Formats: sequence, C-alpha cells, structure tokens
Amino acid sequence: MTTVTVLGLGPMGHALAAAFIAADHPTTVWNRTPGKENGLDAAVAATAAEAITAGPLVIVCVRDYTVARSILDTDALKGRTLVNLSGGSPEQARAMAEWAAGHGIDYLDGVIMATTDAIGGPDAALFFSGPADVYETHRPTLAALGENVLYVGDSPGRAAAFDASLQDMLWTSMSGVIHMFALAKAEGIPAADIAEHAKALLGFFPAMIDLLAEQVTTENYPGDAGTLHATAATMDHILDAIRAQDLDNGVLSAARAEVRRAIDAGHGEDGFGRLAALP
Amino acid sequence: MTTVTVLGLGPMGHALAAAFIAADHPTTVWNRTPGKENGLDAAVAATAAEAITAGPLVIVCVRDYTVARSILDTDALKGRTLVNLSGGSPEQARAMAEWAAGHGIDYLDGVIMATTDAIGGPDAALFFSGPADVYETHRPTLAALGENVLYVGDSPGRAAAFDASLQDMLWTSMSGVIHMFALAKAEGIPAADIAEHAKALLGFFPAMIDLLAEQVTTENYPGDAGTLHATAATMDHILDAIRAQDLDNGVLSAARAEVRRAIDAGHGEDGFGRLAALP
Repeated sequence: MTTVTVLGLGPMGHALAAAFIAADHPTTVWNRTPGKENGLDAAVAATAAEAITAGPLVIVCVRDYTVARSILDTDALKGRTLVNLSGGSPEQARAMAEWAAGHGIDYLDGVIMATTDAIGGPDAALFFSGPADVYETHRPTLAALGENVLYVGDSPGRAAAFDASLQDMLWTSMSGVIHMFALAKAEGIPAADIAEHAKALLGFFPAMIDLLAEQVTTENYPGDAGTLHATAATMDHILDAIRAQDLDNGVLSAARAEVRRAIDAGHGEDGFGRLAALP
Repeated sequence: MTTVTVLGLGPMGHALAAAFIAADHPTTVWNRTPGKENGLDAAVAATAAEAITAGPLVIVCVRDYTVARSILDTDALKGRTLVNLSGGSPEQARAMAEWAAGHGIDYLDGVIMATTDAIGGPDAALFFSGPADVYETHRPTLAALGENVLYVGDSPGRAAAFDASLQDMLWTSMSGVIHMFALAKAEGIPAADIAEHAKALLGFFPAMIDLLAEQVTTENYPGDAGTLHATAATMDHILDAIRAQDLDNGVLSAARAEVRRAIDAGHGEDGFGRLAALP
C-alpha cells in the first residue's frame, strides 16, 4: 500500500486521513495547530516538511489555495505528487499547477462533492484533473476516498470548473429552497407541507436539465416549453408575493434582471436556455 | 355532467377547455379576440356575459388578475361559481375573493403547476383554495383538469401562496442550472457532461429539503451538516470562478449577501436554514 501524507486536519482533512487509514495505507498527518489527530491511527509529523517526505503522495486539504501555498515546502515536495483538495476556483487551480510544475512537483487538482461523513463511502464523489499518467499512478490510492472517484481531464482547472459549476447550481437552488420556506412561512404554510410538494416538483428537474442542456449544446433556444416573456410574468407574480411579505427579494430580482436583459436584446420568445448565452 | 364556461383561450385556457370537453362536460368558451376556439367541440359565446350565463361554473384563465377583472361581468356571475386560474400573487387572490364576495359570487382561486400539454393527465397538479363547500360541489368537475387536483384550504390566498413559494424554488433553481451551464461552457465543459453530474447531485436534494424543513419548523439551525461560514467560503470560490470568466454573477452575489447578513447578525456557525428566519 502507498504511504500517504495528509496536510491539514480540519473536519475534511481528518475524514480523508481516516479513509486512507481504513484502506490500510500507512498515513502521516500534520496540522498547523497540533492536537487535531485524535482518533487517527497515523504517524504525526512535527513539521510539514517531515510529513511530506514520509512518502510519495501528499494530500493537502486546507481552507484555500493561499493557505495551501503557505504550508507547502517546495524542496520537500520535489519529485513527489501533490494532490490539492483545498477549495478554490479553476484559475487558482491553473496557477497552482504552474507553480508546481515550476518546482518539479507532479500535481493533481481535486474537488470533493461530499460531506465529511460521506468520505470513503458510496455517496462521496471526487473529481480530479491533471496529467493522466500521474492520476493513473495514484488512482488505486485515491479510490479509498469514495466510491465515485472520477478523472475529468488533464487540464488542471477542469476539476475545479466542474465543482464551481455544480456548486453554483447547488447553492443557487438551496437559496431557492430557503426562499420557498420563508415565503410559505409568511403565508402560514407549514414547512413540511410545502416540502412535500417541492420534492414532487424535483421529479421534473432531470427533464428540464436535459432540455436546457440540449438548448445550450445546439445554441438553439425554442420557446415552445415556455418563453422568456412567460418566465418574466411568472417571476413578477412571485416578486409581488415576496414584496407583499417584506421578504428579501435580492436573489429572484437578480434572476429577473437577467431575463429582462435577454428580452431587451430581442429574445423574449426564446426559451430559458437563451440565458446561458447572454454576453 | 356540469356545464362549464371557460373565459380566455390562450394556450392554457385552450388546454383547460379541451380537458373539460374530453371529460364530457358541455363547454362554452369565450375569448376577447375571436377565432381561438379551433379544435374545441364547444359552444362559442359572442360575449363574456353570454358565456358566463351558460352554466353554474365559470373558469377564467387570462394573463393576470387585472385582465380577469376587466372581462368579468358581475351581474352575470352573481349566484354562480367563479374559478380563477389566472396567475397572480396571494394578495391579489385575497383581493379578488373579497371582490367576488361583494358581488354575491362564489369564488375559488386556483393555480396550475403544469405545462399546457400535461393538463388532464398524470403530471398536472392544480391547487385550489376557497370555501370548502364550494370546492366540494365542483371537485368532480375540476378533477378533469389533472390527476393531482388538491384543495389546500379555505383561505383564498392559500393556493397562490403555495404556487408562489414553489415557483420561487423552481425559477431560482432553474437560474442556478443556467449559470452552471454558462460557467461550464466558459470552462470548456460540454453541457451534456455537466448535466449528468447535475442530475446525480439532484439525488441529494430531497434529503436537503427535509433537513431545511426541519430547521425551519423547529426554529433550530444546527450547523453540523455545514455552517454559514463554510457556505460563504464556497460561494466565494464560485464567485471567483464566475468573475474570472466575466459572467453574470448577480444571482449568486445576492445569495452571498444574504449569507453575509446572517453572519453579521452572529449566525455564522448556524446551518443554512437560518436564512429563512432573517428579519
């Protein structure tokens, strides 16, 4: 089994180390503030450099790329593989890959689509991008982190781009869920009641996603399943309802402004997919 | 079978009339501009008043409540039941119910959660609110409109409140889907590729909706499945990615501003559900 180093023992770093240990990889850990290794059957290094030199594969999982860069010892890392599972944007991932290349470090950029308790199990998805041969070398080890470990290409920003796109959908949708609950509550509808209908409505989402994907792919935005004019009218009704209850309308107002921009550009009879192509 | 009047023959009104006809209800139709009754085996009235007096149940489905009010003849409607399926806010529904009561008209307010082609079938959901006895009288007739016809209470704005809440979730989420596609496209990820992962991610939505419903119901917002501080960091990464591609960031920025407001109010260690309770 490959010896693995985990730098950063926040909740996620801790979960990653635990998953490697559970898969019988000898594991060395380090955290900037000591004492975070509780419950881990791991070697605890006194310094980041000592941790890094314990083996060929170094995982870093800290708050962001800036913190990651600040704890990484380039001399120690030279000739090893660094896998960065800290959160960041595609641009940051690309910059980090260049930095790594400049120091003779093999680099994979990864993202985690899972909560800490899902790590290592069937619900954990992790995306990696970087050189294919580097990924192939470490794929069996990285497989310990979850049942859905996916290589998305050699462009170093690709994993972060998948992540940012999916997280955009996720958090915007979660914001919609919250506003649904806030409006329902203001109107005296119990959260559990509206939740049942919301879950039923989710059943139509896969078909809508496929429809929009087709519009985006073909750059053809037919309005027969609903025009932007109709969407604008619906959004205005919702905004009326939100304003009547003095609730925050910033998110839906921003979405409405985008629809207005598309209509002003002459696309009112197009479908919703047109919004993905606004300049 | 009850004789039904349908006022308004836009695409949705046309679909409603077709569903009543398919269920063997003698149907009378009227539209402000004539000639829209193509394909309907219905009596075509020359005036709204003539259409209204054809039977006991009058459906109006036009652009909005203002248009609805402008075509409704109160003398003709007196003693009959008016079912308003035009789009509007809960406040407008309440005002319309008062107006109807003032004119001796039985009133049900309804909303349609379906596309025109789903009307009458298993995918059509319709919510109605208003006096329970009026609904009971006409329930068998309204059942022609879809397999999920639901009475949500006697408060006249209740159906519109369900609708506005669910539509808020729907359109905010759809906005998230569009931004996902836009960012993926800018990063060179094909729409079909990201769509597959988006649909996989949807699998986690029902549990998240239930979790948030519980937080909203109990007014207790534990952050153990993710704190607002963590959400803020994630949103900042996404915003970095959006800005690096010069894409519209208005929607997510508004969502981020709400998270900031909650953190500034001292709720950074709470879960996302806290946002539903922001003043």
